[in-house]
Amino acid sequence: MKHLNIVKVGGKVIDDPDALTEFLQAFTELEGFKVLVHGGGKIATKVAEAMQLKTKMIDGRRITDDEMIEVVTMTYGGLINKKIVSQLQGFGIDAVGLCGADGNLILSDKRPKQGEVDFGWVGDPKQVNGKWLGSLIEENKVPVIAPLTHDGKGNLLNTNADTIAKVLGVALSSSYEISINYCFELSGVLRDIGDPASLIKSLDPEKYFRLKAKGVIAAGMIPKLDNAFDAIQKGVKKVRIMDQQSISKLQNEQYDEFTTIH
Amino acid sequence: MKHLNIVKVGGKVIDDPDALTEFLQAFTELEGFKVLVHGGGKIATKVAEAMQLKTKMIDGRRITDDEMIEVVTMTYGGLINKKIVSQLQGFGIDAVGLCGADGNLILSDKRPKQGEVDFGWVGDPKQVNGKWLGSLIEENKVPVIAPLTHDGKGNLLNTNADTIAKVLGVALSSSYEISINYCFELSGVLRDIGDPASLIKSLDPEKYFRLKAKGVIAAGMIPKLDNAFDAIQKGVKKVRIMDQQSISKLQNEQYDEFTTIH
Repeated sequence: MKHLNIVKVGGKVIDDPDALTEFLQAFTELEGFKVLVHGGGKIATKVAEAMQLKTKMIDGRRITDDEMIEVVTMTYGGLINKKIVSQLQGFGIDAVGLCGADGNLILSDKRPKQGEVDFGWVGDPKQVNGKWLGSLIEENKVPVIAPLTHDGKGNLLNTNADTIAKVLGVALSSSYEISINYCFELSGVLRDIGDPASLIKSLDPEKYFRLKAKGVIAAGMIPKLDNAFDAIQKGVKKVRIMDQQSISKLQNEQYDEFTTIH
Repeated sequence: MKHLNIVKVGGKVIDDPDALTEFLQAFTELEGFKVLVHGGGKIATKVAEAMQLKTKMIDGRRITDDEMIEVVTMTYGGLINKKIVSQLQGFGIDAVGLCGADGNLILSDKRPKQGEVDFGWVGDPKQVNGKWLGSLIEENKVPVIAPLTHDGKGNLLNTNADTIAKVLGVALSSSYEISINYCFELSGVLRDIGDPASLIKSLDPEKYFRLKAKGVIAAGMIPKLDNAFDAIQKGVKKVRIMDQQSISKLQNEQYDEFTTIH
């Protein structure tokens, strides 16, 4: 079976043009079939502030009201996505920028109200057009996916980028041996966030459960790891949590400075 | 030879959500292979104003400085493009939103300084990836193209949507019988802009030259008509200047309430 790397990048690298260019160079050097999924960073919040819109958050999650879905559509689907695509094209990668509405790539359910909390235009993926995505990959295109999906009724939905990487990986796992690489600022899951030497090189469900119970794993890491274990259970071969600048080192089989999920 | 309609829409229809939905319904009803090219309307100016950026204009043309290319990338490549795609998907059309950087669809030269005037990040198309665009069309996808191209060196370029419709039509004219339909608020080229009965149903280069010399054709119409005549000369079968709401009537062969360019 052919191998496909799905790389998810987000956080500070999206907000810092130099860091983003450096990451895209590393991504360019990664050989073989690949897909890039990007998050939104803080640009949407900055644009919303510049437009004097208030960003509503509940438990660290953005409430996507009518104004905010316009801002995230602009920033995720336009600014970030097309900047990444044009830079990759400049590096000789035949990138194609898409959101989940394009080619009906990712159809979602609008998240229902949870008690008093209405997250607004937020989507939970339910169906992936893996056939079309696979055909783009076979043409040696590199899909660059923005964290937006649609409801099939004409509406765009703000969607978690980690979840998008997972559902794409699961959908393509019958045709490819999939590795999902969740990239961020640290070298992987750390026991002590201030100490790079505390890297946990390997995590299985049991160890994850124990570390979560002890409070060793930071709250922000939990949704990412839940996605990672779910991906493995649904057919994805390998999930790594890793430093974004190390992405090109994956070719070196001796390289293991990251967290692998089993 | 198979027939392909390229429809360009811009102006007020982009700024008015109800008019846009009505137009997209009419576009949905248009049978056969089709491509939609959209302009930017006034949304970029509004977003720039909301962000307290000043829009610089020279002779009615936007100067695309470093800040403004970010705003047009957001609004053209993100907000407008993805809204159109998600609405078309809602109408059952398998739309795919692209800018000229995606799949190296349209490579441009950055426009050189003209005397004292630097238009900034503005591009003049020089090469179209017609092979890929044709393959999308053959898969029954409907490409929706934003007026942005790239320079192949990592930069996005603001590009006239009428010109994009033309270069796409010319590039595909060896594989398809192309009709380009420039849609706007009026029923076509009018002798008297206030009088719908003054519609000019047919224009050839000689008549165009005469009407231009007499000042009958409005200044804003000249770049559109120059593109139209250039398209015809380079292999496009038919160019129409027409009312956006009449687009679905093209199936009716008796319908001729528009301007045809010969």
